[in-house]
Amino acid sequence: MSAKPGRPVGKESDARKRLIDAARPLFIQLTYDKVSTRRVAESAGVNVALIRYYFSNKAGLFEAVIQDTIAPMQAALQADREHYGAASMADVLKAYYRCMAPHPDFPRLVARVMNEDDNSAERKIFESHFRRYVRPFERHFLRLIPNEIRDNIDPDLARMSFMSLMVFPFLLPKAMAAIHNIHIDEDFLERLADHNIALLKYGMLHPAPADNGDLNP
Amino acid sequence: MSAKPGRPVGKESDARKRLIDAARPLFIQLTYDKVSTRRVAESAGVNVALIRYYFSNKAGLFEAVIQDTIAPMQAALQADREHYGAASMADVLKAYYRCMAPHPDFPRLVARVMNEDDNSAERKIFESHFRRYVRPFERHFLRLIPNEIRDNIDPDLARMSFMSLMVFPFLLPKAMAAIHNIHIDEDFLERLADHNIALLKYGMLHPAPADNGDLNP
Repeated sequence: MSAKPGRPVGKESDARKRLIDAARPLFIQLTYDKVSTRRVAESAGVNVALIRYYFSNKAGLFEAVIQDTIAPMQAALQADREHYGAASMADVLKAYYRCMAPHPDFPRLVARVMNEDDNSAERKIFESHFRRYVRPFERHFLRLIPNEIRDNIDPDLARMSFMSLMVFPFLLPKAMAAIHNIHIDEDFLERLADHNIALLKYGMLHPAPADNGDLNP
Repeated sequence: MSAKPGRPVGKESDARKRLIDAARPLFIQLTYDKVSTRRVAESAGVNVALIRYYFSNKAGLFEAVIQDTIAPMQAALQADREHYGAASMADVLKAYYRCMAPHPDFPRLVARVMNEDDNSAERKIFESHFRRYVRPFERHFLRLIPNEIRDNIDPDLARMSFMSLMVFPFLLPKAMAAIHNIHIDEDFLERLADHNIALLKYGMLHPAPADNGDLNP
């Protein structure tokens, strides 16, 4: 770990990746102000000067964490754009779950940052990324909704339901998840994706007695 | 505002209610540590000594805020218990939206508190309330699910979907809601309740081409 500023030695991309992976949980657990580049470098086991080399400063590192995390989602979107007809709300849901499965606390970071006031530094960084990467995805997604939902359904309400099913599992506080015996891991998310897609298509409740004349209790 | 500690004058319940209504937004906006009883009293326009009189201390005031907020939900649950057959997941959803419509930021406070570490003072207060008031409701609710969902559906996944639809609209960061042109008010929540109940019953997507042999794009 004797790399000097401006002249990293060894596997560059490896150190960069390790800094991002070390920074992500710190940005999630602490507030932006409390994350020091020194602590990130220590946790990554690399020289702190490499943060300046790769990311310029803490803001650049934060930006890289966001970009690294949502990259798989962008990749999925890119594929969707190229084969537009193949994209569906079900694909979006699965892509989101798969993208977040390795970083299930990331959506909580996003929610926390977006709840900060207008001149928060991390919110500004996040929003600039949001405009660049998430908005195109959203515009794409918004086009899907009217094509896929039934004619009598309000697209705004449909979007709210869809976002709820997609994002809430990651925002459920851990203390609440524990009460409900829920553990958000890859297996649970795979099953939840299939379940939520079936819910969007067919619902999940028994028909009410009035719906079919049946009077089962 | 010349009331003395221990001997409030005038409309007692009015001052108590004003203190709760003044404290709620402060507990939501600030962290527990930063809410001072002096500030709550100022905002309520009553003598700070009345906080000691009605609530003993800040913890008691916080407890009263929680209780006051979830009381309408408890009342609905009580009615459900007495007429058990009449209760349904749809009723729970409507009751929750109606209970939270006047305090749409309260679920965000709950999520924030429940994300705090195990020895946070506000989390302890909240959890003791949770056990006393929310758990009976949850036990009640958990009994509904297997009765109402179709036989081939996993109750754990059904519960996650239901909680997602119920709670997420209140956790959506305001900055995100603004991007989506969504304003969480009573009217929106009434429409969302009906929409989500229909979604739970029937789904919201067109049948896939494979489902009916139709090849509409």
